[in-house]
Amino acid sequence: MGRTEEAHYRERAQRKKALVDRRIARATIDRGVLVVNTGNGKGKSSSGFGMLARSLGHGFNCGVVQFIKGSFTTGEDLFFRRFGEAFADRLEYHVMGEGFTWETQDRERDVAAAMAAWDVAARMLADPAFDFVLLDELNIALNKDYVPLEAVLAAVAARPERQHVVITGRGAPEALVDAADTVTEMRLVKHAFKAGIKAQHGIEL
Amino acid sequence: MGRTEEAHYRERAQRKKALVDRRIARATIDRGVLVVNTGNGKGKSSSGFGMLARSLGHGFNCGVVQFIKGSFTTGEDLFFRRFGEAFADRLEYHVMGEGFTWETQDRERDVAAAMAAWDVAARMLADPAFDFVLLDELNIALNKDYVPLEAVLAAVAARPERQHVVITGRGAPEALVDAADTVTEMRLVKHAFKAGIKAQHGIEL
Repeated sequence: MGRTEEAHYRERAQRKKALVDRRIARATIDRGVLVVNTGNGKGKSSSGFGMLARSLGHGFNCGVVQFIKGSFTTGEDLFFRRFGEAFADRLEYHVMGEGFTWETQDRERDVAAAMAAWDVAARMLADPAFDFVLLDELNIALNKDYVPLEAVLAAVAARPERQHVVITGRGAPEALVDAADTVTEMRLVKHAFKAGIKAQHGIEL
Repeated sequence: MGRTEEAHYRERAQRKKALVDRRIARATIDRGVLVVNTGNGKGKSSSGFGMLARSLGHGFNCGVVQFIKGSFTTGEDLFFRRFGEAFADRLEYHVMGEGFTWETQDRERDVAAAMAAWDVAARMLADPAFDFVLLDELNIALNKDYVPLEAVLAAVAARPERQHVVITGRGAPEALVDAADTVTEMRLVKHAFKAGIKAQHGIEL
């Protein structure tokens, strides 16, 4: 790269740096955030578990409630439970719910299981001892009216100021998206499963 | 819920179960997959780290190369390094690169750092001992032409058949999307940062 090119590279980088620095300086609010991962693509729950790893890395007290048992992957489960031996007092992990609705085929049982999971979640959301709460696949339970949306919105709004909450699952209700600070739609571009590839350990499982 | 309603619920669930079962039966190919997380929204890297947790949970041998030092979050770093004590022989973790380009302001240094990271990645992609390889923010290095796309496509195509590879970063090159099995675009719906909220430990950091 010639001298002029190099100078241009540096100039562009300096302008970019100034822009980024200004943006960072403007972001002064410091509080717990509500993150929603939705959409039909891959990555909603795995991103939630990545944030859980981050939070545990910082020594936070973390709570996890999985609303759809079996949508979750033995991989995370194995990992965080194994890891949990070292951090047992930092992580409360519940796998609840009765599996996908098309597996149980019994609405009353589905509602009862989802509400039992919600009771645990509501207790975490009311407890300032939890720095980070992951409510995995809660959107599914909301969409199916297993758990009342109003109860979730009220509990999230009333939670401790520093507490982070991550809610995952396709079809996030609009009111939850409105209430959230950060929302990502995981858009499916393509998926190996549609090309006939089995769900893979470490990736989906 | 009345008897008729209950019967309808069960019927719908049975039809759904039959459909899902058929789809699962059709997915018979069993091999390593290439996953690409791209887009401007949150969750690309955290999803990659969630899959890393899954893979470690299954006892896989895993490799991680972070191409943009500092885009990564001390949280994951802390977590997987701490955890790494228990699984030291299962995880090879490299934080490389020289930071965001607008921080270094020196193209030659950026290219050299990205290529040093790529050398490590290429070694992992050629080694059947690695079951899972996460190349975090590689897309950034590809977009800036720090690392040649052809080299990445060739290494990924020639990798061991059972090896999973996850590549993250905004702006995935089209040829990489074409080569991938599963691609998600993390679409930004909204982000707390734009509302003036600082990057939060456990969420972004």
